[in-house]
Amino acid sequence: MKVLALAGGVGGAKLCLGLARALPEDALRIVVNTGDDEDFYGLRVCPDMDTVMYTLAGMSNTETGWGIAGESFTTLSALERIGQDPWFMLGDQDIATHIVRSDILRRGGTLSQATDYLRRWLGVERPIIPMSDDRVRTMVETDAGTLPFQTYFVKLRCEPRVSDIRFAGADGAALSPGFSESLDECDVLVVCPSNPYLSVAPILSVTGVRERIEAFEGVRVAVSPIVGGEALKGPAAKLLEEMGEDVSCVGVARQYAGLCDIFVLDEVDRHLADEVSALGMEALVLDTIMTTDEDKTRLAREIAAAASGRDAE
Amino acid sequence: MKVLALAGGVGGAKLCLGLARALPEDALRIVVNTGDDEDFYGLRVCPDMDTVMYTLAGMSNTETGWGIAGESFTTLSALERIGQDPWFMLGDQDIATHIVRSDILRRGGTLSQATDYLRRWLGVERPIIPMSDDRVRTMVETDAGTLPFQTYFVKLRCEPRVSDIRFAGADGAALSPGFSESLDECDVLVVCPSNPYLSVAPILSVTGVRERIEAFEGVRVAVSPIVGGEALKGPAAKLLEEMGEDVSCVGVARQYAGLCDIFVLDEVDRHLADEVSALGMEALVLDTIMTTDEDKTRLAREIAAAASGRDAE
Repeated sequence: MKVLALAGGVGGAKLCLGLARALPEDALRIVVNTGDDEDFYGLRVCPDMDTVMYTLAGMSNTETGWGIAGESFTTLSALERIGQDPWFMLGDQDIATHIVRSDILRRGGTLSQATDYLRRWLGVERPIIPMSDDRVRTMVETDAGTLPFQTYFVKLRCEPRVSDIRFAGADGAALSPGFSESLDECDVLVVCPSNPYLSVAPILSVTGVRERIEAFEGVRVAVSPIVGGEALKGPAAKLLEEMGEDVSCVGVARQYAGLCDIFVLDEVDRHLADEVSALGMEALVLDTIMTTDEDKTRLAREIAAAASGRDAE
Repeated sequence: MKVLALAGGVGGAKLCLGLARALPEDALRIVVNTGDDEDFYGLRVCPDMDTVMYTLAGMSNTETGWGIAGESFTTLSALERIGQDPWFMLGDQDIATHIVRSDILRRGGTLSQATDYLRRWLGVERPIIPMSDDRVRTMVETDAGTLPFQTYFVKLRCEPRVSDIRFAGADGAALSPGFSESLDECDVLVVCPSNPYLSVAPILSVTGVRERIEAFEGVRVAVSPIVGGEALKGPAAKLLEEMGEDVSCVGVARQYAGLCDIFVLDEVDRHLADEVSALGMEALVLDTIMTTDEDKTRLAREIAAAASGRDAE
C-alpha cells in the first residue's frame, strides 16, 4: 500500500508523523499546501511545508505549533533594529531554512527541489512535496479588505470576518511533478485533519487537481479537523461559520463530497455519522485526538487499515 | 574643510572613527572598498563597508576586527546543518544586515542606497559610500590558483603566495554618485591606513578614479598601514614582499606616487622620511598607532591640521 497524504499545518503534520511511523519507508508521500507561503525581507517562507518538515525531523516546537523547538530570535531583533517589521516570527535556526530555500529558487531550482534538499539534510526520510512549483497565493476577502494569508492569519490573528477565499495564481499553476506522480502511484489518498478552506482548498485549487482526485482509483480518506463543533487548532470553526457552513464535521465533510470515500469523524461526533453518510461517503468513527506520538501512530494505522478494507475497530 | 576618506577594513575604520569624532558633522564623507564583497547563500556581504559601519555605530567587535560585538552564530550552525559550508563567519545580528541589503538590491536599489539605509538605521551620521554601485571583484592570483578575495583572505588565511591582483569588473564600473560628488566637494582626501593592494587599489581601479585623484584640487594625504616594517593587522607586509616591494612605509608610499601630497609615517619610521620625500610627497611623521578612541581622534586631528596647512607637531 502506498499512501499520499495531503497536509496543511499543525493537524496535518501530526497525522503525517503518525503515517511516517506506521508505514514502511517507501509507502508514504506527503503533498503540502503552499498557498500560505510568503516572502519576508526577500526570503521565501513556506510555513506549512516547514511545519511538516520540522515535525518529521523531530525539531518542531510543539508548544507554539510553529517553528523549531528552542529557537532564539537574534536575527529578527536585528532586522527590527534596521527598520524591518518583525510581525512574522522567524527564529535564528528557521531563517537558515529560508535563506537556503531562497538561494536554491533564485539559482533556478524548483520549490520541489529546494524542499527535497532541505528535508534530506534534516534527516526526513519521507518525501515532502509542494502542491505546485508555481506560486499560488491564498488571498482572504474580509471585512478588513483583501488580505494575503499570513496578514490575515498571523498579523491580524484571524480576527477579520471572512467572506471569500481566493487562490491567486492557481489557474495557471501546474501541480508539482511529485504530486502528479504520487496521484498515479499511490493507492490511498489521505486528506489530513487540516483546515478545509485554508489548507486543503488551496491544494484542490491547483489546475487539474480536483479532477485527478475525482478520478483517483484508490481509496480516498479525509479526517475531520473539527471535533465536537470546535477546531482543535486554528480558525477552522470560525471560518465554517463565516462561510455559512455547519460548524461541525458535517460542514467539513460537505467540502469533500465527491472527493472522498471514507470520512473520519471523532468519537464525540458519532451522532453525526448518518449525516456524513448521506453525503455519499462512508462515515468512520475513530478517536482522532492526537496528543502523543502513540495517538498519531494509532490513528494512522486505523486509517490505513480502513483504507485497505479491513475493519480497524 | 570637507574630508573624503578612502577606507578598507579595520585600519581604515579606526581612522574613520577618529575623523568622525574630530570633524564637524557635515565635514566627512567615507568611501569604502567593495572589491572584497562576496555572496554567501545568496546574501550580499560587504565586509569592509560593514566594518566601517559597525565601527562608527559603536557596535564592532574590536577583538576580532570583524563583525558585531557579542554575536551569536545560531543561524550559521543551522546553515551548516543543512549542508552549507560555514567558513565565512556570519553572526546572527550581522546576517540581518545582509538580508536587508540583499533585499534592497534585488528590488532594484543600488548598493549606495542600501548602505545609506543601513547606516542611518544604525545611527551612523556620516555618509558611508561604496566605491561603486557596480560589481567589482578583487581576484588574487596565487600559487594556489586564481582566488576570489574572501577565499584567499578568510578561507586560506592569506597563506597562498600572491603573484598578482586583478579587479574583475573594474573596467566597466562607474564610481558611485556619492564618490563622484565627494571628489568635487571635498578639499581634503585621506587615504586611510588600509592595505594598499587589497583595500585601496580596488578603489583606484574603478574607471576614472585614478585620474580624478590625480586631478584632485585639494590636499591628498595617505597614512601608512606599515609601521616598523610590519603590518598592524592583516597581510599587507606579506603582500609587499610577494609583490617585490619594500616591506616598509616606503613600499606603501611608492604605491601612492602621483596620488598623494602628504604621506604619514610612524615615529618609528622617522629614518625613512627622506626616502618618502624623494617620491615627491611631503613626509609627515606622526604617532599612527590607534589603540584607544583618543588615539584615533588625535591622529585624525593631526592629519586634518596638516592638510589645512598648519603644523600639527
